[in-house]
Amino acid sequence: MSGQRVTLAHGSGGRLTQTLIRQVFGDLFQNPILERMNDAAVIQAEGEGRLAFSIDGHVVNPLFFPGGSIGEIAVNGTVNDLAMMGARPLWLAASFIIEEGLLLSDLRRIAEDMARAARRAHVLLVAGDTKVVERGKGDGVYISVAGIGIVPPGVNVDAANARPGDVVLINAPIAAHGMTIMTLREGLHFESDLKSDTAPLNEIVADLLDAAPHVHAMRDATRGGLATALHELAQTAHVGILLEENAIPVHEAARAACELLGLDPLYVANEGVFVALVPPEEAEAALAAMRAHPLGRHARRIGTVTQEHRGRVILRTALGSNRILPPLSGDLLPRIC
Amino acid sequence: MSGQRVTLAHGSGGRLTQTLIRQVFGDLFQNPILERMNDAAVIQAEGEGRLAFSIDGHVVNPLFFPGGSIGEIAVNGTVNDLAMMGARPLWLAASFIIEEGLLLSDLRRIAEDMARAARRAHVLLVAGDTKVVERGKGDGVYISVAGIGIVPPGVNVDAANARPGDVVLINAPIAAHGMTIMTLREGLHFESDLKSDTAPLNEIVADLLDAAPHVHAMRDATRGGLATALHELAQTAHVGILLEENAIPVHEAARAACELLGLDPLYVANEGVFVALVPPEEAEAALAAMRAHPLGRHARRIGTVTQEHRGRVILRTALGSNRILPPLSGDLLPRIC
Repeated sequence: MSGQRVTLAHGSGGRLTQTLIRQVFGDLFQNPILERMNDAAVIQAEGEGRLAFSIDGHVVNPLFFPGGSIGEIAVNGTVNDLAMMGARPLWLAASFIIEEGLLLSDLRRIAEDMARAARRAHVLLVAGDTKVVERGKGDGVYISVAGIGIVPPGVNVDAANARPGDVVLINAPIAAHGMTIMTLREGLHFESDLKSDTAPLNEIVADLLDAAPHVHAMRDATRGGLATALHELAQTAHVGILLEENAIPVHEAARAACELLGLDPLYVANEGVFVALVPPEEAEAALAAMRAHPLGRHARRIGTVTQEHRGRVILRTALGSNRILPPLSGDLLPRIC
Repeated sequence: MSGQRVTLAHGSGGRLTQTLIRQVFGDLFQNPILERMNDAAVIQAEGEGRLAFSIDGHVVNPLFFPGGSIGEIAVNGTVNDLAMMGARPLWLAASFIIEEGLLLSDLRRIAEDMARAARRAHVLLVAGDTKVVERGKGDGVYISVAGIGIVPPGVNVDAANARPGDVVLINAPIAAHGMTIMTLREGLHFESDLKSDTAPLNEIVADLLDAAPHVHAMRDATRGGLATALHELAQTAHVGILLEENAIPVHEAARAACELLGLDPLYVANEGVFVALVPPEEAEAALAAMRAHPLGRHARRIGTVTQEHRGRVILRTALGSNRILPPLSGDLLPRIC
């Protein structure tokens, strides 16, 4: 398919759409459900548990970047949204909105990344749709991925469950994804080890829930960064969150890039970072479980949930003063994920 | 919100994203699941049955047209994909990719159409996501909607189940949606009663399955029209399909528009038309059930499934000759749905 590009006719729903799907996605997502070529996938859900259901659109620019691509973050993003509810992610469905002129080889690379990410996260892509828009009415490809997971009986993770006294844990250093995209877009290639942290968090979350079954709430710190994610949790549960600035791990190269560009790493997007709000009696076990997983080697306790400052996130700075962290206002950089 | 437009900052994931969601979607989709503001919706599925799961992207241009809008077809499209598997559609999740500069009032109108369509189809929107792309990198808004339905025990509708001898039934005249969009885009406003047929098919399908529980296969005739939908069924089930040209109902104004533009109505997109392949012993009951529903008043028997011509659709013309109907090749008109 070298040099071939997507045309509007690839979006007709007819013969050429079938050709595109076969050429680009054909062998990558083979599974008995997808192969039936029906209007919807029919799935036999086994065992007990509630369903978790989510959707996430991805418009990241550029499509490929150090550490990943739009394909990887599209799969991992939905896997992680499901994992944040304590669900075991199982099935994905993907909608591609493709700009006329996209190289088929680029679309293929993206599909390969999605297939690899799906294998890594142990999820199946069971349904999909492709549309094509005219040149100049898109930007390569936008991908929305929906996912279904099963929340095992007994697991009850919900933003609203956060309680004063809960310990705030984080799995990994912040700011790598956002600063990777930002330095790439600004043409600053100075940090050789700066790459996106995109990763599926379902496995580390499963380990965490095994060790600490009463985790109250979790959230991944994507668009808007750690500060915005915690602000949402504080608002939803009507609690305060007190963070220790000294304790928050920041990716070293990302910190340097933030300083250069005058940005606060607390507001920079991540694709493999999450926070867990854990009752104090399970905090040690939770931290140990996170550290035992490759995606949690640098896990830390970064703060506590408080009765005071309800609905707010407070940062206790290195100098000992308190600073309110509002949610992100305006936008650091569009098209980060 | 009169005159206000979507800005890139509305896509930040921070405060302005929350404001946009409240302003535009706030009161329209109230339900206890969505209100929890979690990363994924958690649903208690009740009763038995397999899950049906589908996704469909919508890029129709223009956003508003006689008979509907992108909002209505985005909801109905996914409802119908689920219904085609015999599923009872229950929950939807929507991903919005919005172009900077879209009027908030237009987005609001679209959201209102989605809410109305969801109420009509008795489905709940339980999760969503919004992204914003720069002016010129989109076209107003693209909407991908994923859906989950439950396939009741005993229902086994599948493209692969079509059998020689099955009767092919259709619920409504074809070509209205595609010709509505096409005449609008061509600036031909001559047909005053030409409007999109967008409609939720889940209720008529439920009535059909009550009356004829052994329906083998169904498909809605969207992109690529009736000919392409039947071709897909013929290919998947390795059967032939013989259509009687005289029997196929064509929307009258759409037929006139097709003649003017030199198009074949068999390849024009529909948004409220489906075919059912029914064993002959249940065909009469099936047809009666379809005709008893407002969306099936003009239901007809249009053909039969054959052992000959496997993988092909054959049209017996009004003149008595046979013509092969291949799937749509090329594209009549991009951005039809």
